[in-house]
Amino acid sequence: MKLNQFGRITVSRQQQRQELATIRFIDDENLKLTPTELWVDLLGRAFPEAHTLAMKQQMVAGLLATPEEAVPEYVAHAAVTPTSFYLVALQLLGFEPGTDFDAAQPLTKMEALGLPFHEKLQDTADLLECWYDFLVTQTPTGQPFIDVLATRGYFAPFYSLPASQKPVIFNGKAMPVFDPAKVIREVVYVEAPLDTDHDGQRDLLRTEIIRPAETAAGLRVPVVYTASPYNEGTNDQLGEQLTHNVDVPLKRRTPDHAPQPHAHPENTPVPTARPVRAITKTAAASFTGEFAYTLNEYLLTRGFAVVYSAGIGTRDSDGLRTCGSAAETLAATSVIEWLGGKRTAFTDHAATAAIQAWWSNGNVAMTGKSYLGTLATACATTGVPNLKTIISEAAISNWYDYYRDGGLAIAPGGFPGEDADVLAAECFSRTKQAADFHRIKSQFEAALQNISREMDREGGTYNAFWDARNYLNDLHNVTADIVMVHGLNDWNVKLRNVFNLWNGLKELPVKQKLILHQGQHIYINNFQSLDFSAMMNLWLTHKLYGVNNGAETALPDVLVQDNTQEETWHAFSDWGGTDCSQTTYFPTPEHTLAAASATGQLSYNDHLATADFDHYRVDIPGWTTALLTDKPTAMTSNRLVFKTQPLDHDVFLEGQPRVTLPLATTLDHGLVSVMLVDYGAARRFNATPTVLKRRGIDHGFHLREEDLVEFKLAKKETPFKMITKGHRNLQNRTNLWQTDELVAGTTYPVTFALQPMFYRLKAGHQLGLVVYATDMGMTVRGNEQASYTLDLAGAQLTVQSRPVV
Amino acid sequence: MKLNQFGRITVSRQQQRQELATIRFIDDENLKLTPTELWVDLLGRAFPEAHTLAMKQQMVAGLLATPEEAVPEYVAHAAVTPTSFYLVALQLLGFEPGTDFDAAQPLTKMEALGLPFHEKLQDTADLLECWYDFLVTQTPTGQPFIDVLATRGYFAPFYSLPASQKPVIFNGKAMPVFDPAKVIREVVYVEAPLDTDHDGQRDLLRTEIIRPAETAAGLRVPVVYTASPYNEGTNDQLGEQLTHNVDVPLKRRTPDHAPQPHAHPENTPVPTARPVRAITKTAAASFTGEFAYTLNEYLLTRGFAVVYSAGIGTRDSDGLRTCGSAAETLAATSVIEWLGGKRTAFTDHAATAAIQAWWSNGNVAMTGKSYLGTLATACATTGVPNLKTIISEAAISNWYDYYRDGGLAIAPGGFPGEDADVLAAECFSRTKQAADFHRIKSQFEAALQNISREMDREGGTYNAFWDARNYLNDLHNVTADIVMVHGLNDWNVKLRNVFNLWNGLKELPVKQKLILHQGQHIYINNFQSLDFSAMMNLWLTHKLYGVNNGAETALPDVLVQDNTQEETWHAFSDWGGTDCSQTTYFPTPEHTLAAASATGQLSYNDHLATADFDHYRVDIPGWTTALLTDKPTAMTSNRLVFKTQPLDHDVFLEGQPRVTLPLATTLDHGLVSVMLVDYGAARRFNATPTVLKRRGIDHGFHLREEDLVEFKLAKKETPFKMITKGHRNLQNRTNLWQTDELVAGTTYPVTFALQPMFYRLKAGHQLGLVVYATDMGMTVRGNEQASYTLDLAGAQLTVQSRPVV
Repeated sequence: MKLNQFGRITVSRQQQRQELATIRFIDDENLKLTPTELWVDLLGRAFPEAHTLAMKQQMVAGLLATPEEAVPEYVAHAAVTPTSFYLVALQLLGFEPGTDFDAAQPLTKMEALGLPFHEKLQDTADLLECWYDFLVTQTPTGQPFIDVLATRGYFAPFYSLPASQKPVIFNGKAMPVFDPAKVIREVVYVEAPLDTDHDGQRDLLRTEIIRPAETAAGLRVPVVYTASPYNEGTNDQLGEQLTHNVDVPLKRRTPDHAPQPHAHPENTPVPTARPVRAITKTAAASFTGEFAYTLNEYLLTRGFAVVYSAGIGTRDSDGLRTCGSAAETLAATSVIEWLGGKRTAFTDHAATAAIQAWWSNGNVAMTGKSYLGTLATACATTGVPNLKTIISEAAISNWYDYYRDGGLAIAPGGFPGEDADVLAAECFSRTKQAADFHRIKSQFEAALQNISREMDREGGTYNAFWDARNYLNDLHNVTADIVMVHGLNDWNVKLRNVFNLWNGLKELPVKQKLILHQGQHIYINNFQSLDFSAMMNLWLTHKLYGVNNGAETALPDVLVQDNTQEETWHAFSDWGGTDCSQTTYFPTPEHTLAAASATGQLSYNDHLATADFDHYRVDIPGWTTALLTDKPTAMTSNRLVFKTQPLDHDVFLEGQPRVTLPLATTLDHGLVSVMLVDYGAARRFNATPTVLKRRGIDHGFHLREEDLVEFKLAKKETPFKMITKGHRNLQNRTNLWQTDELVAGTTYPVTFALQPMFYRLKAGHQLGLVVYATDMGMTVRGNEQASYTLDLAGAQLTVQSRPVV
Repeated sequence: MKLNQFGRITVSRQQQRQELATIRFIDDENLKLTPTELWVDLLGRAFPEAHTLAMKQQMVAGLLATPEEAVPEYVAHAAVTPTSFYLVALQLLGFEPGTDFDAAQPLTKMEALGLPFHEKLQDTADLLECWYDFLVTQTPTGQPFIDVLATRGYFAPFYSLPASQKPVIFNGKAMPVFDPAKVIREVVYVEAPLDTDHDGQRDLLRTEIIRPAETAAGLRVPVVYTASPYNEGTNDQLGEQLTHNVDVPLKRRTPDHAPQPHAHPENTPVPTARPVRAITKTAAASFTGEFAYTLNEYLLTRGFAVVYSAGIGTRDSDGLRTCGSAAETLAATSVIEWLGGKRTAFTDHAATAAIQAWWSNGNVAMTGKSYLGTLATACATTGVPNLKTIISEAAISNWYDYYRDGGLAIAPGGFPGEDADVLAAECFSRTKQAADFHRIKSQFEAALQNISREMDREGGTYNAFWDARNYLNDLHNVTADIVMVHGLNDWNVKLRNVFNLWNGLKELPVKQKLILHQGQHIYINNFQSLDFSAMMNLWLTHKLYGVNNGAETALPDVLVQDNTQEETWHAFSDWGGTDCSQTTYFPTPEHTLAAASATGQLSYNDHLATADFDHYRVDIPGWTTALLTDKPTAMTSNRLVFKTQPLDHDVFLEGQPRVTLPLATTLDHGLVSVMLVDYGAARRFNATPTVLKRRGIDHGFHLREEDLVEFKLAKKETPFKMITKGHRNLQNRTNLWQTDELVAGTTYPVTFALQPMFYRLKAGHQLGLVVYATDMGMTVRGNEQASYTLDLAGAQLTVQSRPVV
């Protein structure tokens, strides 16, 4: 086990003492004790469950101070030493002497775990430093020990502190001194400067607030806001009905010289705001049952209000869904503006009374994954002033990079046939209030038809519809600092989305941090090997509470989880940037990737026998294996595989690989798909994390628990793993919007970038390039009679890498 | 979707009115309204989130009263009718008009769902009956609608009711009027009349209590007690180390005439009780982080205290684990006695002060699955007077039927090599307090060696060790009424355990109820198709609060989930009893099961090629398929398969099938394994339930949510499914304790019962009998060179069945 910790800061001994006093580990009384007596006193305080001295003594007596003696026996004749201190500390952290480590060698275990410790412990000052550092030490639940104490009730006595003494900061992070059972839950309706349902009234947006009770006593708190279009329900059946048939041929487009498209700005005049007839501080409704992000709940108990708003076209809000348009962004920023005192909200749809966010300190962060993170990114690109930071997880930065690629409709992994219209319909939860839906139904259907037309699924090019949903256009507006989190195996929201955001922000005067993990499309706040919640706490305590805790330097710029070793995270300063070297490989007739250009031609088919096609259609993993394996399969003649020599040493492959492939096809339309593959037998990570302990994490005290998880190497070796892939319509050789000519039998060079990567390729493994046409999981699959010929002269692959040190 | 509901009772119109007033749906004011006005008022009260009249109106306006009109529009010109009432009701239950049903035909939908409704609605009295019945109607979360309202905060205003007005009963069930955020959590140490660790002091048992705050104001509440040896942690590593090697040959035993064994009564004198030096009402410690059964939490908010105690040899308790002995039972009953005022508890190990369960009304129920349910069963067989009922889920009734069968060591499914000593070591969580463990370690190891010796794994017979762990011996003591719950696919705790308990209690003056579901070793309080929590609420409100609600007749005696149709439960009066008919089948040389006895001999091997053996060792599902399939596999010559003709019509196969098999083997030791198999292509239930909605159930209000699940038919057909199986040592032909002679090459008839079943065999399917030797998943597997010969003359299979009507 290796416990990685990044959300921990170093403070002076003086500050340590102040903070220990603040959180009630030391006081005038116990500082009078000898160091050994003080140690026993501190240990007693580390059992918040014990309410009497006898009970504290009983619990401390359960701890071994030497391999043979309990603490009371030991201190009867000896003084605390580093060895006894850390033997006890390890037990408190959850390790069992004998089973998990040698009780005679606690310092060795601390070192092996990667936990900091002190080898000098002679006086009270030393002891307090040891104790402070121990409190912020990482535990096997991925939480610092002080957070584990919190889950055991340590901070419950702090609930009654006056609001003026909150929040309580320890080691740069807000502590859970806010009673989760006493939070105030209320609903307001923010009035957005929009009328997307054209009813002549500005759209009112249901907004759900959970705020600490202390706000009622005058405390102003910052806000963690999650814009989740899913939170009010989804139309799963309708979505399934609308899902497009992908078993259709690729459409040939008529060549053109289309110029670069630009979004049509929305010019419809907005109705005037509703009159304010009354003002109240009391909401008219509460709510429950929201699907909450547990990071938000963690923060809630630490003094951050949590706000959810699903946006236009969702249950109990006005408007229509537009799948990522500026109107959706404006809906989300309207809530931020309301939180900053710059916009009106009402208690109900009848606008009975206006209600302000009088309890907010104005500082807002946004959180959430996928569409939620996407809206956070979208809001950041508006520059709305009181949005101080976003934690943008697995977020779309450009919807073209979600539903399209290289002039093709490309499905999010696992969702063939999904498209912008499908998602708009799925999220239109006004259906959940039948009478409301009845009134809006025809408009909804008309708007949906517009989306279906404008997104141009058959065409696949980058057009005005997509340009209106490309947040990268507006990066120059960004003022919020951004934390990005993305899974290196996320084929739902593909990595280009985060890569382009990272690169686009580099020259701007904002701070950005990036975490790349080995997951697919998941949250990472319940991993054992990373203190993600503490990291975000450090960040937000700085950004929203203004605490000067050095968060910006404490957190690494780029943090990447290793794909070959468990519990291993690497810090870098950039991703695929100028510190990488570049290598170009040339495919050869011998199916190798060589250092020098080769000549010759190699062909592959696209068509499959019906039985094979029907099988692969419903077994995408089986199809992927057939595509990549060296063994003969129905896919063998439907792809070309080129491999490098086995590597001498490990390398990190980074950034966007680029290929140039001179290709001819037997039809007047066609596409190329490419995979980079790690060939070499190895135990690789399972696709999903392993549950180490069901309900193993409580982020507060009697909060909803979460499973503790970690990525684990599979028990069995696999012969290969796809690293990344890319796709291109052969009629989009020039760019993404113009349609090029394609004459059957003519060879055209096609150059394009694959999805970005960060991958450790092991010594002895081979890097493989696999070229094929139809991608059963992502492209349309007409199973046409077509073959392709690759002209090796001019074919090449370029990848960035850096050595593993 | 079919919504099954058994925890609902019929009450008079007068009582309905009283109850509606109690839970504040009607009062003097709204009873003055017209029926239609009252309907709108009731609808408004069904939105507990709305705190103002305007907000209630807004929410009601979201409901359609006709396919075209919202409720306010409709009532402006028309009166409430059954059609409008149930159209609205269906929306409140969570169904969407248009998507889930035809808005013009709500009564048709009610009927299709199996929900009760009224076709007459003319006056206030009718309306109130409709409303009452609607409130107790089942919803798609498996909860009655009143419980869904509860999860939305309906009963939060009742939290402040005086303790004297609680509990609140509605439709025979306790309502969640107790604030879960205000519960009192405390730890006491119950002194048991035991000294299992021989330290000269009675064993103190850590006991964790969660009780409603109202107890502090004088309310006496009943107790739901779960004795969970796992709750204080487990020694997983140690358990793995101690797990027995199963790749060993079966041991030949020397023939004997051993008499029926009887447990040695424990005669060690018990030390005197600790003196009571002081008495207090205040505990010295609280606790958190228990692994709670969510049924307990459901009950907690309804006015039942919840108590956990892990028992002797667990963290923070005295004593040693004994894997099911009388001492473990006595530890558990000591807690019950303390709850009834008949035993002493102390605030800490130092016995600083005695503390009584002064808040308890004395009535106790026990809950929990597996070992937890086992201890409930064990306690019931002591007749401890204040244990009023147990809900015994997947419980062991006889530990021989858990770790042994037919003179063989038989593993719980999925845990080859586990045995009584392994479990005793795994649950000995005094290891978690290192200093405590250090003191007790040598005693623990000695005790463990005793268990290992006495359980006689190699022998496998029923001996005094097992007789001491056979609770069936003491059924005559039972006074508690018993609800049994067991999975028909539970191969961990096998069905003989519940079957013998059910049958053993039949002649005794106690009430018993039985629920057989299609799960493996699981809880069932989060299923969509069954109102399990409400059923248990009805039962416990009767048994512990003494409410005369007719629970004993409302709940069916035997409730069985169908294995061929989703969401289908059948009620019976018995399981495999005298109302079943009996059929005997005879295996033939043509591998059929015929109506008349045949002659001839058929042989099969036991040995496998090393590669096959090594493969099957680690792939038990693959081995099972190879064993049962008609296709040639490495197992083909290692088993005999006999099949009936395809069935004309569906039948329920019930109870314990019995076989007589005249067998000879080539060695001087041997075993026989038998499976009954359903042969016939069909979509069958997945082994584990499908999650319908993540965190889809809240059992209270802001309680921890749980996944909503249901068993679903797999998408693909399978050719067969094992129905049940059984095993026998060929040296245990006479009984389970005596060792019979076994001469190689001599044929001996062996008669034994398979594990009980309740299985719907479909028309067109064939019943199969599979005979083999080594069971890769359950028996030892020495892979010896052995073959077996079955003499068909005298071979037979007898099964009980009843027609499907």
